[in-house]
Amino acid sequence: MTLSADALAEIAELRATAAPTRRAVVPALEAILFEPLPVLDQGFIRVVDYMGDDDAIVQAARVSYGKGTKQVSTDQGLINYLMRHRHTTPFEMCEIKLHVKLPIFVARQWIRHRTANVNEYSARYSVLDDGSYRPEIGHLAAQAAHNRQGRGEALEPEMAKAVLDRLDASAASAEATYRWLLGDAPGEPGLSRELARMVLPLSAYTQWYWKIDLHNLLHFVALRADSHAQYEIRAYAEVLSQIIEKWVPVTAAAFRDYRVEGAALSGKALAVVKRLLRGEPVDRDAAGMSAREWRELMALLGLPAEG
Amino acid sequence: MTLSADALAEIAELRATAAPTRRAVVPALEAILFEPLPVLDQGFIRVVDYMGDDDAIVQAARVSYGKGTKQVSTDQGLINYLMRHRHTTPFEMCEIKLHVKLPIFVARQWIRHRTANVNEYSARYSVLDDGSYRPEIGHLAAQAAHNRQGRGEALEPEMAKAVLDRLDASAASAEATYRWLLGDAPGEPGLSRELARMVLPLSAYTQWYWKIDLHNLLHFVALRADSHAQYEIRAYAEVLSQIIEKWVPVTAAAFRDYRVEGAALSGKALAVVKRLLRGEPVDRDAAGMSAREWRELMALLGLPAEG
Amino acid sequence: MTLSADALAEIAELRATAAPTRRAVVPALEAILFEPLPVLDQGFIRVVDYMGDDDAIVQAARVSYGKGTKQVSTDQGLINYLMRHRHTTPFEMCEIKLHVKLPIFVARQWIRHRTANVNEYSARYSVLDDGSYRPEIGHLAAQAAHNRQGRGEALEPEMAKAVLDRLDASAASAEATYRWLLGDAPGEPGLSRELARMVLPLSAYTQWYWKIDLHNLLHFVALRADSHAQYEIRAYAEVLSQIIEKWVPVTAAAFRDYRVEGAALSGKALAVVKRLLRGEPVDRDAAGMSAREWRELMALLGLPAEG
Amino acid sequence: MTLSADALAEIAELRATAAPTRRAVVPALEAILFEPLPVLDQGFIRVVDYMGDDDAIVQAARVSYGKGTKQVSTDQGLINYLMRHRHTTPFEMCEIKLHVKLPIFVARQWIRHRTANVNEYSARYSVLDDGSYRPEIGHLAAQAAHNRQGRGEALEPEMAKAVLDRLDASAASAEATYRWLLGDAPGEPGLSRELARMVLPLSAYTQWYWKIDLHNLLHFVALRADSHAQYEIRAYAEVLSQIIEKWVPVTAAAFRDYRVEGAALSGKALAVVKRLLRGEPVDRDAAGMSAREWRELMALLGLPAEG
Repeated sequence: MTLSADALAEIAELRATAAPTRRAVVPALEAILFEPLPVLDQGFIRVVDYMGDDDAIVQAARVSYGKGTKQVSTDQGLINYLMRHRHTTPFEMCEIKLHVKLPIFVARQWIRHRTANVNEYSARYSVLDDGSYRPEIGHLAAQAAHNRQGRGEALEPEMAKAVLDRLDASAASAEATYRWLLGDAPGEPGLSRELARMVLPLSAYTQWYWKIDLHNLLHFVALRADSHAQYEIRAYAEVLSQIIEKWVPVTAAAFRDYRVEGAALSGKALAVVKRLLRGEPVDRDAAGMSAREWRELMALLGLPAEG
Repeated sequence: MTLSADALAEIAELRATAAPTRRAVVPALEAILFEPLPVLDQGFIRVVDYMGDDDAIVQAARVSYGKGTKQVSTDQGLINYLMRHRHTTPFEMCEIKLHVKLPIFVARQWIRHRTANVNEYSARYSVLDDGSYRPEIGHLAAQAAHNRQGRGEALEPEMAKAVLDRLDASAASAEATYRWLLGDAPGEPGLSRELARMVLPLSAYTQWYWKIDLHNLLHFVALRADSHAQYEIRAYAEVLSQIIEKWVPVTAAAFRDYRVEGAALSGKALAVVKRLLRGEPVDRDAAGMSAREWRELMALLGLPAEG
Repeated sequence: MTLSADALAEIAELRATAAPTRRAVVPALEAILFEPLPVLDQGFIRVVDYMGDDDAIVQAARVSYGKGTKQVSTDQGLINYLMRHRHTTPFEMCEIKLHVKLPIFVARQWIRHRTANVNEYSARYSVLDDGSYRPEIGHLAAQAAHNRQGRGEALEPEMAKAVLDRLDASAASAEATYRWLLGDAPGEPGLSRELARMVLPLSAYTQWYWKIDLHNLLHFVALRADSHAQYEIRAYAEVLSQIIEKWVPVTAAAFRDYRVEGAALSGKALAVVKRLLRGEPVDRDAAGMSAREWRELMALLGLPAEG
Repeated sequence: MTLSADALAEIAELRATAAPTRRAVVPALEAILFEPLPVLDQGFIRVVDYMGDDDAIVQAARVSYGKGTKQVSTDQGLINYLMRHRHTTPFEMCEIKLHVKLPIFVARQWIRHRTANVNEYSARYSVLDDGSYRPEIGHLAAQAAHNRQGRGEALEPEMAKAVLDRLDASAASAEATYRWLLGDAPGEPGLSRELARMVLPLSAYTQWYWKIDLHNLLHFVALRADSHAQYEIRAYAEVLSQIIEKWVPVTAAAFRDYRVEGAALSGKALAVVKRLLRGEPVDRDAAGMSAREWRELMALLGLPAEG
């Protein structure tokens, strides 16, 4: 991640200023405010603003005049209760605003989360010159054989090298074309920006301001930090996870227990578990589960798949 | 508006605390933070938290690393431009959280604005004892003759007095029934709260935490501070307007010019205006407008309706 | 449920008409189209329109030119897969529009689901004369002792009778006041409708058109048909469930297995289950669970709470 | 636009089927149902399903048991009234589902409209082989001099030809790289699809199912059929406009008069118009308007800019 001297100076200026507020303040988040947290080769996430903390969740759940309750243990119990029973509205009472630099193909997955506010850098209005994403060699993997939407084995080093070279050449060529199209010296096309951009590859970096409430942020992280998500968006989700830990540590702990480390059982799966606990024989056919579901259930329970 | 000593003490405690933050701070809003601003006879709006200021809008529109621009005039011009061209996303980058006490019939209009976060005091879980709305005698008006959803002439004083007496008796009777149903001494029903509440009138006060972004808040105010809105929700919208003035004065000025004091002309109305400016005769039939539209247009232009 | 002769005639007229369409048609839903399905004493749900069927979900998931796949088994497998992995967007591709008559206190819970379209009968504009909800005597229950937001034991018959009498008197009195306020003969107040309505009780019936996509409808039913939901909204959720069975039977079956009859285990609960399956001793303290969570887990697994 | 024989056969099969329904049917929309309406060089919009018609809007506004009213003139008047006063919820009661093929840079603008449901063809899961957008030579224009986000003069024919050649070469090169990366014969990389796609250009075509209610569709068209919108998305908005004309002709007429052909005046602009109508002198400085606003107002009123 490389930022221009101007950008660094602007960030330093923002970080040097402080003023008193009566609002909830989270020192651990203030400590990293405005700083670009690196993601992938050139991307970043910057926390630009935030509203609320763990107390604000309790306060909203109780519709109280002051802070939530006085006792930490009570607040933690309430937050666990809210998370367990999926009472989501109190978590919507905290809000965070981020500045994110990310490849366009990641941006296209990201934007599918509609309950958020977005202002993206406009390539109609300005020239997009933030470079392209270049994977680390270790992340180049073959199409998975058994899972149509994932990665399988890493490529052999020599092949991986050939792929990287081709990616580099492709990005360089697209960028050169973009520059040529925009060129407005005599004899150059000076094509409008809104048209020229269409030669840029999906690996090109873009930027946006993104604002979201805590409930929807947790939902985003649950989906995008999951092992089924594409590595490149997972890298962002993991930084978001770390930001959440700093911002609302009590909520983050409840989220880990009830969502990240938990699991959903279907009615059929629950019936199998109950039979197992009673020492009764179980059988995939009798349970009415597909081979894949059965395999997933046995893996979840730490049992051999032949059940 | 009367608050319990406990509530006042909690508010005072919150107001007495301050801590440094690197985030945008709006002193005029800090000055009223947590204070109940009275609305109607017993309602209030309290600003509980906020995120962003006029600068944050510019910052988001530019997707910048630091503050927006350096010059106030440029920022104002940009905000005017965004408001004029209905580029709404930068205004979504500011957020405010309010604690509101309001009659249930007002709450039912209010909640129709879906793009907001709400936590309402639960009458399933707790006893609702916030009293009922009692209009001022001057606000008691007859059904409008020409507008099916509005108020017409004020009631005669004697009749208004009779109406108030009847409203008081009705509210007192409903409250007594509610209390009796909840009573759980031996020989009393001790009915569940979720059932008992159904005898409460729509004038009963409820409370909620309500969080919304600036764009949607402006939309709310545009609709609810309008002269066609019911007086009781307008009273809340006017306090919201004052809060917006303190929070984002540049945006508030643009909103006043382009939305509140502005007007939308239909294609037909615009054609009439152009004819008038050219000194050509105009005619409702030729213009293809309904009598009502014509009347509204002439009033807007400050012309006699016979046009 | 009693409908006016006019309303019945309008419904009969709609039901008597049919025209050919190239769109997906669901005969089981056509059979009940426009018919009021009774809920509570005077409420109803009418299916007014619908878009899509089980096939439409497959079609959208595949972004196909024609129908989804050709084989029923494949479609069922895909729908199960989507439900299990919470790929929710294909379920958003079906939409349903309902006309609902419901008590205001139910409407206030219902409207909290924001991802839907609503047009409510306006008591500013028209007189609300749909009567009030009167619970059946068997549904009158005391406040739960252990659960602050639920019902406990049914009231003793004599007490229940006294409560019903008081509810009747309260509703009759509110309605009489409402009528008197609206009365516009000479010497009567003729108060504007928007003000008069505030004496109506929360048990008064209102009506609305409500339109929602299948994903959000399933979410609504999952929350509101749950045993923790208030009986009165559960009664509506159960009718919605029956409508879903007729409309999209494959999706309904998947929903039952994965959501209704399934369960979410926290990370801690999952660890307990794995220990149990390995025959190792378990212990609430060691598991780090609250007494309540432990009790709920043991009940879920069909084990004695003393664990 | 070229579709595979398989796709054409599937479409023909769908179009050949019809079944009776009690729902509202719009013959003009049935006539084009499932047919690909061409947009740009290879894109299309297909109407896949719809719910409701002009009557349904009236029906919802009235919360009626049957159809809205009996008289066409009354319905038209009501729809005009709703459009004029921005009562938007009745228009939300109609819904349409489309299958759209569009270039990725258009898709990225399109998706900013969040109040819609989307299922996009997945380039993680499948190979994207829908070709790239190639502008017509007449649409190649230079960057606008005075408007940072628009097109100015058309390029000179020779330069335009050179640009097209370069665009073709760039697209061909990107596609060849994509194919090579995906190649899985021995000695080829067989890179995972989710990674290979990042070399595709923003001009590559993608496809999605998109479902939206009529109110939000009108808002989309108002913004995207506007002369400030990029030509490529405007081409789609114009086809959407034609679909709306067929679907809900009364609403379409009201939309044209009140939104498309109408204009919003600021408070300052309205004051200028009133002065002009009274024959008083006007002056940009006295009016407090920027040079640009003044120019836009005079153009709107058909007056010379020197005012």
